[in-house]
Amino acid sequence: MRKLITLLIAGAVASSAASPQSPPEASGDALVYVGDKLQKPANYREWIFLSAGLDMSYSSTQTPGHHMFGNAFVNPQAYREFQKTGTWPDKTAIVLETRGAQNKGSINRAGLFQDGDVMGVEVHVKDESRFSGKWAFFAFDGDRPAPMIPTDAQCYACHAQHAAVDTTFVQFYPTLLSLATTKATLSASYLAENPKP
Amino acid sequence: MRKLITLLIAGAVASSAASPQSPPEASGDALVYVGDKLQKPANYREWIFLSAGLDMSYSSTQTPGHHMFGNAFVNPQAYREFQKTGTWPDKTAIVLETRGAQNKGSINRAGLFQDGDVMGVEVHVKDESRFSGKWAFFAFDGDRPAPMIPTDAQCYACHAQHAAVDTTFVQFYPTLLSLATTKATLSASYLAENPKP
Repeated sequence: MRKLITLLIAGAVASSAASPQSPPEASGDALVYVGDKLQKPANYREWIFLSAGLDMSYSSTQTPGHHMFGNAFVNPQAYREFQKTGTWPDKTAIVLETRGAQNKGSINRAGLFQDGDVMGVEVHVKDESRFSGKWAFFAFDGDRPAPMIPTDAQCYACHAQHAAVDTTFVQFYPTLLSLATTKATLSASYLAENPKP
Repeated sequence: MRKLITLLIAGAVASSAASPQSPPEASGDALVYVGDKLQKPANYREWIFLSAGLDMSYSSTQTPGHHMFGNAFVNPQAYREFQKTGTWPDKTAIVLETRGAQNKGSINRAGLFQDGDVMGVEVHVKDESRFSGKWAFFAFDGDRPAPMIPTDAQCYACHAQHAAVDTTFVQFYPTLLSLATTKATLSASYLAENPKP
């Protein structure tokens, strides 16, 4: 069983969200909650692409039986704000979609491409009025609304300790990393772990 | 020297575009030509993400010394039309961006993530009034406007023979492949090469 970089949250199930009841929010890239649960964003594939990785892991000793791509997207409104400020506004949502990888297909003979199997969808949400820690993680099982991952899950501590910007792994989003560097919004912990060469 | 799936066009230099002079077109996702040459789309990273691959190649015998990701994007207007019809409208532009891949960095210990080095940008454009074959390829060297790749380059024949939809490699864009299958817009040559199991 392999763990992707932001897949620490998989497996958590208990609900611990903040606002008990809330009406569905406006359309566009706004998120929709059903009680404490978050609906899977319907159109995240039309959001802004941040980056893609392959088999990313915290551990160098894993031996997975298959390859997986991870694609990261952010809602356009948050992306536009990041372009201006180098950090995330309230109501940011970053989606990590994991997909199966294929080697042989059509004219491809080497390397890997993404296939039709979505293996997981996780969302990292900033909502200052909804979550006491400002950010929350959700992991979806199919299309059902998902409860918030409890804040004692390892993902929260790891993101707080190692993420480049405001608990998000901007170090793996190349166009945003250079922007955050220019705008001096990199976290103190990230700078301490990654001193300039 | 490795060749990516749509990198057959690299190395071509001669100009052979159709319309001799044309004024810059409207903003948004419209392309801008400077005489015969195409300007590199400034904001393609904000277009719709189609998919990403790693080290994709026509040949199984290559031994590259490094890894590369390829990210494919399409202009939003063309994407919306594809959602309705399963094929590409006039003024479609598909961008393939290739980026260097890193293994070690921050907390990552396995797998690969994308770094800041853009190694190439290529564009496949449909413009029925501009190109006699409807589609044209451009490969950019830095930010300079690029001439059209001559139509006797191998990329044109390969895309015509093997591409799933209207000379484009939709077989590597998982969300579009299922749509094209449903809407019965897959090319005859693709269907012949990839019979249903």
